[in-house]
Amino acid sequence: MFQSSEIYGGLNGCWDYGPLGVELLNNIKSEWWKAMTYRDDVEGLDAAILMHPKVWEASGHVENFTDPMIDCKQCKARFRLDTLAEFLSDKRKEKALKQLVQNLEEINSEFLPEVKEIVASDSDLNEKFTAVLEKEKLSESLLSLVSCPQCGSKNTFTKPRSFNLMFKTFLGPVEKEGNVIYLRPETAQGIFVNFLNVQNASRQKLPFGIAQIGKAFRNEINTKNFLFRTREFEQMEMQYFVKPSDDKKYYDYWKEIRMEWYKSLGMNPGKLRYHDHPADKLAHYAKEATDIEYQFPFGWGEIEGIHNRTDFDLSRHEEYSGKSQKYYDEELKEKYIPYIIETSAGASRSFMAFLVDAYHEEEVKGEKRVVLKFHPKLAPIKAAILPLVNKDGMPEIAKKIETELRPHLKVFYDDKGAIGRRYRRQDEAGTPFCITVDSQTLEDNTVTVRERDSMEQERIAILGLLDYLILKLK
Amino acid sequence: MFQSSEIYGGLNGCWDYGPLGVELLNNIKSEWWKAMTYRDDVEGLDAAILMHPKVWEASGHVENFTDPMIDCKQCKARFRLDTLAEFLSDKRKEKALKQLVQNLEEINSEFLPEVKEIVASDSDLNEKFTAVLEKEKLSESLLSLVSCPQCGSKNTFTKPRSFNLMFKTFLGPVEKEGNVIYLRPETAQGIFVNFLNVQNASRQKLPFGIAQIGKAFRNEINTKNFLFRTREFEQMEMQYFVKPSDDKKYYDYWKEIRMEWYKSLGMNPGKLRYHDHPADKLAHYAKEATDIEYQFPFGWGEIEGIHNRTDFDLSRHEEYSGKSQKYYDEELKEKYIPYIIETSAGASRSFMAFLVDAYHEEEVKGEKRVVLKFHPKLAPIKAAILPLVNKDGMPEIAKKIETELRPHLKVFYDDKGAIGRRYRRQDEAGTPFCITVDSQTLEDNTVTVRERDSMEQERIAILGLLDYLILKLK
Repeated sequence: MFQSSEIYGGLNGCWDYGPLGVELLNNIKSEWWKAMTYRDDVEGLDAAILMHPKVWEASGHVENFTDPMIDCKQCKARFRLDTLAEFLSDKRKEKALKQLVQNLEEINSEFLPEVKEIVASDSDLNEKFTAVLEKEKLSESLLSLVSCPQCGSKNTFTKPRSFNLMFKTFLGPVEKEGNVIYLRPETAQGIFVNFLNVQNASRQKLPFGIAQIGKAFRNEINTKNFLFRTREFEQMEMQYFVKPSDDKKYYDYWKEIRMEWYKSLGMNPGKLRYHDHPADKLAHYAKEATDIEYQFPFGWGEIEGIHNRTDFDLSRHEEYSGKSQKYYDEELKEKYIPYIIETSAGASRSFMAFLVDAYHEEEVKGEKRVVLKFHPKLAPIKAAILPLVNKDGMPEIAKKIETELRPHLKVFYDDKGAIGRRYRRQDEAGTPFCITVDSQTLEDNTVTVRERDSMEQERIAILGLLDYLILKLK
Repeated sequence: MFQSSEIYGGLNGCWDYGPLGVELLNNIKSEWWKAMTYRDDVEGLDAAILMHPKVWEASGHVENFTDPMIDCKQCKARFRLDTLAEFLSDKRKEKALKQLVQNLEEINSEFLPEVKEIVASDSDLNEKFTAVLEKEKLSESLLSLVSCPQCGSKNTFTKPRSFNLMFKTFLGPVEKEGNVIYLRPETAQGIFVNFLNVQNASRQKLPFGIAQIGKAFRNEINTKNFLFRTREFEQMEMQYFVKPSDDKKYYDYWKEIRMEWYKSLGMNPGKLRYHDHPADKLAHYAKEATDIEYQFPFGWGEIEGIHNRTDFDLSRHEEYSGKSQKYYDEELKEKYIPYIIETSAGASRSFMAFLVDAYHEEEVKGEKRVVLKFHPKLAPIKAAILPLVNKDGMPEIAKKIETELRPHLKVFYDDKGAIGRRYRRQDEAGTPFCITVDSQTLEDNTVTVRERDSMEQERIAILGLLDYLILKLK
């Protein structure tokens, strides 16, 4: 991974995938596509990033997709109100809350009981601090009691303001209000507005899904944790349209299927968990929701969300477009708006989870070995061809093997340096198989194939090599 | 294909790929990726759409990526100055040019010889008209002699203005000049700024290339011809870095290779041609350039450009970033900026070319047959499974075949309606193989496989069906 536009100092929150990275990413996307659309009940779609602005009014993004933010008047640092607590010391936060209570007592404020209740609760300190900060009438008072985490100035914060996270641009040359369009902040809406187009074209009946992979953009105030919170990212989303009374059944079904997908591609089950959203924390469109979380080095983080979105989205689009979004149920002989079960995976976040999960340090014969234990389907390079000595026609045979494998598999040829070092390089790239051409090859047309994780070697006839690898990579 | 946000009246110049469309598009991209990166001299990359604004200063886009435009003051229709001629009748244009010459004669204008020369040249009328229109001192005079093609108003056009075709947005919440960023108008720059990152990571030596597939955006004034000129589109670009003295060799090499690629995927060679750019029409960065053109129903149109970009791009990035972009040549023991041979293919345009090229109408037994003769590698659905009669366990066998093929291939199951109609539906989708389960299947565990173009049928054992199909699809 490289930072976007690195030679110009980088563009915050945007990343470029290098040669190995793009292969890993493509393999993840391709496995997801096969798992999700090589089914008789799911159709694919690739909707445009630029959409009609009414879409984002209907979805609620124009009105609600905002973060509260504050600025330091001195150093111009910008913070999200709801994450400021993370930048302050515990001592600072405790002192500020205590001082606030005192101040409110002095003026006998009507907000005193509320604040006292929050402070006395068993939430952790960050949650308490943020809960008070987010009370409209109290945020300024509390902000006046802490200094800027970046420059240390006192009494320096602006009032909290709402900031819409959608990137906005203008269609056509005139930069006026009526020409505003947005970069999509999620791919889901491209599926919703195409529900009937796809259903008519595919002649699908409920239940069925529409799947798509694509970029989305959020103008985050604070990006963090490498690929975890970025301004440009990629999603792998599937929206499953069901009879309203079937919602629970398919919510449970997809919840299980999606967790299994990560495990089937080798992700450590001990680092995966569900985080079910409690009823009082559900998004406005959701009846039930869970996150699939991965245990990153920085803590548990969502890599996929499964949501029962009810008929919220299609009803809103029906209302805002004036076009019926109802499905005609031939069995029931009635029209209704289907419920939607959404599985929304981050391609970029999955990439980071698979990468972190694959990383292992081991000791082999007294030396440290770094190895990326990718599932063979995900490994960027499938096989490396390593001629042992640069003589006796070995490079020629090795080159011939390379030429034969290359149209079918991403392979790598390396004849530089000691064989041990060459193995280590491939271990670090996560290449599952190393093929060495040695003096025995010249005698019997066999090569050794070394398996990355076990480091065990097998002798295989060159003639059967491609079939051997393809079988192993399945 | 559906128009983006169709239920809201659509967003001009943006399109969504439906279930079959996305498969065709993905297959084209995947074949390109394999052809271009499963080589030992090309590395893959996936750079972000959002880049540092300095990139577009260095590339010349901020200054030069503009179209001259005019507006009708009455009806507000907007035209590109250089394509206005297409909207006017020949008679109108001839009359306007003649009148202009008269007017210039009357005032004995210094521009008269120039205009007379253009009018007397053997260019076609549109070219003549546009050539005069694009002379800064003459455009207003000529514009005053034609009326608006949309509303017919006379003397109605604004002065020509430059309009930058990059979509602009703001990074972070403050909409001020210093925060302006752009949606990339081409993917190439993401490769140029990563040249040394990729070279270092991959340890490649010249000559080598970097390939990437991704979206780009241009705020076109007039979109046209379906997918040909859109505001959002996808590119498949490869930049090949070479020793300056090798430029001609690799320009010729890639020119040939890229043309062969389209032919190898079944595109009609009679509808493909090169259009070499004459020396006086080359872009500012190019030493030599050719378009690969396809003969669309609306005329010849570029689907790929091959350019010798010299050291222009890397030199500019070195100048604007202050970071050396030089390559150290171990053989020559010297540092230099490589030349770049670019192969820039439109994924969206290739999609349209492959689609149009595959379309055939035939007469079969006195009836019209519409068939999309896609190369099997590009066909959205690889095989359809069609049980002949819904009895005798045939659907069960057919379903079993479907289940066995599905993890490996995109297949389709259809048991509705007469077999002839089911065949026709698959012909229209371009499915190369139809598998029918009939009464003989129950006796000997064979099925018939019908090939789309020849409509010939073969009996194949169910056991060997997957291998048979995979071999045919290679």
